[in-house]
Amino acid sequence: MAQHNAFYAQSGGVTAVINATACGVIEACRQAPDQIGKVYAGHNGIIGALTEDLIDVNQESDEAIAALRYTPGGAFGSCRYKLKDIETHRTQYERLIEVFKAHDIRYFFYNGGGDSADTCLKVSQLSEKMGYPLTAIHVPKTVDNDLPVTDNSPGFGSVAKYIATSTREASLDIASMCATSTKVFVLEVMGRHAGWIAAAGGLAGEAEGEPPHMIVFPEVAFDRKKAMARVDESVKRYGYCVIVVSEGARYEDGTFLADAGNTDAFGHRQLGGVAPTLAGMIKQDLGYKYHWAVADYLQRSARHLASKTDVEQAYAVGREAVALALAGKNSMMPAIRRISESPYQWDIIATPLAEVANREKFMPPSFITEDGFGITADCRQYLLPLIQGEDFPPFENGLPKVARLSLTLAERKLPDFTL
Amino acid sequence: MAQHNAFYAQSGGVTAVINATACGVIEACRQAPDQIGKVYAGHNGIIGALTEDLIDVNQESDEAIAALRYTPGGAFGSCRYKLKDIETHRTQYERLIEVFKAHDIRYFFYNGGGDSADTCLKVSQLSEKMGYPLTAIHVPKTVDNDLPVTDNSPGFGSVAKYIATSTREASLDIASMCATSTKVFVLEVMGRHAGWIAAAGGLAGEAEGEPPHMIVFPEVAFDRKKAMARVDESVKRYGYCVIVVSEGARYEDGTFLADAGNTDAFGHRQLGGVAPTLAGMIKQDLGYKYHWAVADYLQRSARHLASKTDVEQAYAVGREAVALALAGKNSMMPAIRRISESPYQWDIIATPLAEVANREKFMPPSFITEDGFGITADCRQYLLPLIQGEDFPPFENGLPKVARLSLTLAERKLPDFTL
Repeated sequence: MAQHNAFYAQSGGVTAVINATACGVIEACRQAPDQIGKVYAGHNGIIGALTEDLIDVNQESDEAIAALRYTPGGAFGSCRYKLKDIETHRTQYERLIEVFKAHDIRYFFYNGGGDSADTCLKVSQLSEKMGYPLTAIHVPKTVDNDLPVTDNSPGFGSVAKYIATSTREASLDIASMCATSTKVFVLEVMGRHAGWIAAAGGLAGEAEGEPPHMIVFPEVAFDRKKAMARVDESVKRYGYCVIVVSEGARYEDGTFLADAGNTDAFGHRQLGGVAPTLAGMIKQDLGYKYHWAVADYLQRSARHLASKTDVEQAYAVGREAVALALAGKNSMMPAIRRISESPYQWDIIATPLAEVANREKFMPPSFITEDGFGITADCRQYLLPLIQGEDFPPFENGLPKVARLSLTLAERKLPDFTL
Repeated sequence: MAQHNAFYAQSGGVTAVINATACGVIEACRQAPDQIGKVYAGHNGIIGALTEDLIDVNQESDEAIAALRYTPGGAFGSCRYKLKDIETHRTQYERLIEVFKAHDIRYFFYNGGGDSADTCLKVSQLSEKMGYPLTAIHVPKTVDNDLPVTDNSPGFGSVAKYIATSTREASLDIASMCATSTKVFVLEVMGRHAGWIAAAGGLAGEAEGEPPHMIVFPEVAFDRKKAMARVDESVKRYGYCVIVVSEGARYEDGTFLADAGNTDAFGHRQLGGVAPTLAGMIKQDLGYKYHWAVADYLQRSARHLASKTDVEQAYAVGREAVALALAGKNSMMPAIRRISESPYQWDIIATPLAEVANREKFMPPSFITEDGFGITADCRQYLLPLIQGEDFPPFENGLPKVARLSLTLAERKLPDFTL
């Protein structure tokens, strides 16, 4: 087989383990020198391919690449940028082909969530629709866990572990304070459309009555009266109430509890502040003293508390993506399959990208308790394997070490291109 | 020496390591059976002493007590309750003596911050002013690090490590997103009067230009124009701006930013929280897309990321408190003394409580850079030893294990008492 170059890029919101996937991709490429020459990384995702901002990954030492395994964030820069259709925006695809040709790129690895899968799907049509021989593989990543087909998404397990741990720790705090001070604690977590992360908060408690006492899912229409009754009951019974609320919590009519009016580049509304909104309601309706926290980026960058299972899966999908590419499987995504529940066993299967792109996986109704405020035993059984094991990063001088890359750009061979 | 009983209680806001101090106190008491019989813990601090809600700590196994070392929150319940003066509120003190007599309590250990030191000081006057032979020791604790005399306060080092780590991790996240999305990240941290915790965020960066790019201290009057210029400069130079802001950030006239009644870019009234307030200003004045997080209880309960130095010091002050009591040193506090900087060495010295109570230790001006937005090399040198070392708790089923105490109340011997 002839040797060609590979392109890897990160897309969408980054995670604590997306760089572990990068590590898997790059290490697997380095181990296939007969087929893969250089690896280029897109500076800021697909944009780097369009503007020919290609990071020459060959300049990075094996040690630096290995350090990606424990470095959060997106080391090569991510982007929120969705390619339009080939039919209507042919120029962009022609440019991609120009850049790929100029750098002899025949393998394309795109590491992202649902929106990015759509971009990767479009790029994977280059060979069929425009005659350029490219093998495009989508590598799954999203803290939201809303990608279909795959049993879970790399990135989610670590956020789940962080939120479950933080909920347990903060619950011990408020439990000690509630006699004379704070009665209600509200933790806002990510998950715009699907309540997977909020559900993970439910793992904090194990026995009946243990916090959290209420989870507010985006999947369940918010009913203020019912919610306040639940909070009041919890304070009266346990002395305090711990709430985990999804940023995507919404009313029956679809209005978000915290609608800030911003939209991001994908046209999604930027949310923020459901915790203070809910806390304000509680103060108003029940008069209880409250505290609230918004974990925001902390939750998805908390590599210091990553799930070992998650790190292993993130790394494995990266390696498997390269295996699929080398086998010529265009337009595919390596998906995680749960083989057995106890002991938890998983493997990776190849899934056609067309089955993945632009579809969201919501929490099944059987995962939410009948009252709408908790997780069921089925949900717990699904979630628990994903947070198993610790994979602490090395610490230096009291702080987690992170990869230091040189991020050298490859020499440009083409004229400038305006997005 | 005759054998008498001891009373231990937790007061004020709890920390990730206050239970490590409890562990130190209780283990030291158990190792002095000739002098100390039972240990009682106040259920919810000093209130437990007043209402005769005494937890019989002898019912707890050695294993359960050892597990306190890695359990956040206040295992026996804390309180926000300050005793009034003996002269004007004699009834409360007579009640304390009644309870102490009924349970043969002659040793009093009060584990708290500045306000609690005041309560402990008053209790320590029982022997002199009311003739009851009690030895009262204050055991230092506060995430705010604002206790005087002691070089640092147990509880602070772990929050500092958590905030420095979280700032570093979240900075990597936003650095990957800033090309096409979020440009500014604001992390709100605790510290209503003193900027110690905010300063710890400064440890995240090591080289010039590394985030955080701006720290907002309560000690430096907030100047919106100057702050916005700094944010803008940072975004233009580095592509993004990471801000650590203290909840106590305030204007020249003393008004807290969070209390200023600001509205966001869309005219919505902010619901409290200095992070969203500051983020709103940035949107309004500069138009940058932002994310914000409020760590709240998460920061002070994050035992999973505790500083080993902090855990050791928290445990040591607990043990030393017992040693002081057994030596008859009434009205004292064990304080941490920094013996040498490099290598960092510390010991514990006895400090008269009168020198501690009702005094706050602010950041020295030499710890804040001239522009008011960063920490100096002196500050870094002071802070770094406090976050050294990791002391991960044991994990079980993916989550940190915590102590499970029976919290059996001792039989009451007295009539009810109304606070």
